Amino acid sequence: MTDKPGYSPSKEQMLKRLARIEGQVRGVTRMVEEERYCIDVLTQIQAAEAALRGVALGLLDDHVHHCMVGSEADRDEKASELMSAVGRFAR
Amino acid sequence: MTDKPGYSPSKEQMLKRLARIEGQVRGVTRMVEEERYCIDVLTQIQAAEAALRGVALGLLDDHVHHCMVGSEADRDEKASELMSAVGRFAR
Amino acid sequence: MTDKPGYSPSKEQMLKRLARIEGQVRGVTRMVEEERYCIDVLTQIQAAEAALRGVALGLLDDHVHHCMVGSEADRDEKASELMSAVGRFAR
Amino acid sequence: MTDKPGYSPSKEQMLKRLARIEGQVRGVTRMVEEERYCIDVLTQIQAAEAALRGVALGLLDDHVHHCMVGSEADRDEKASELMSAVGRFAR
Repeated sequence: MTDKPGYSPSKEQMLKRLARIEGQVRGVTRMVEEERYCIDVLTQIQAAEAALRGVALGLLDDHVHHCMVGSEADRDEKASELMSAVGRFAR
Repeated sequence: MTDKPGYSPSKEQMLKRLARIEGQVRGVTRMVEEERYCIDVLTQIQAAEAALRGVALGLLDDHVHHCMVGSEADRDEKASELMSAVGRFAR
Repeated sequence: MTDKPGYSPSKEQMLKRLARIEGQVRGVTRMVEEERYCIDVLTQIQAAEAALRGVALGLLDDHVHHCMVGSEADRDEKASELMSAVGRFAR
Repeated sequence: MTDKPGYSPSKEQMLKRLARIEGQVRGVTRMVEEERYCIDVLTQIQAAEAALRGVALGLLDDHVHHCMVGSEADRDEKASELMSAVGRFAR
């Protein structure tokens, strides 16, 4: 157990993944500038989306395992926050 | 607080919603038998899917608010179960 | 090739899948009646959702391959219907 | 009408949206560096995801309305490409 919030254990890994995602978005921009075939652009966008989704699920996992501790009132508020996030995934 | 697990408070409401969903699926079957226009069938299927999703989110909400209690080891196992379910929503 | 729209080739298969989905929904109802553990119920609901999703994608595939023919005006209307359905998947 | 494929009409708009998304991803990176509360980071990631999804749906809409023309064989191949993309949305 650490006294740091949630995702610090894998912070470096997250920053790497975010840097890669930024590069993917820039790649999409380039493809649009070059008027590449729309399905190819779409495929790249979906790859970036999937990568973002992976980072989001990693964060959620940290939240569920590490943040949902503390007093009952705290947990209840955190459970509500969690469900808001899950609801946005699951719309 | 009750000593029953999760969703009992709204059990009746869930059973009503499930009965309605069963009816929706039967409606889709009828539309397919009558060879109705595929987009209309699709719209009905998506309505049934959305209704199931609503029931699933209701269950997850109960789980998060009521089941994630107990010893730390218990909570950790429940957090993992939760994330498996969320992962299936968010694939 | 048939002169019927869309999904008739696999109509029988679709009806079988829908019958199985109806059974899955009834199974969920039974689990709720028996107050089974919420994560187990959730898993069953997600299985039914995935099965419905499979039927929906099959219909969409038929639509895209067989219905999007005809005059340009027709195609345009069908393209719009298609995008409404896709938008509901992709929300 | 132009003789260019798909998304050229709204190319400028797409580039603007992609620039904004790149900024959102950079914002997420900053939040992770500052070890902000995981649910807040998550919310930002989901906003970027939703924005990417919007761009993807715009591209798909162009594809469906403008690219799915030509000979029957062409259309069939394009329909298959389309369904691959839709399948990734709808997994």
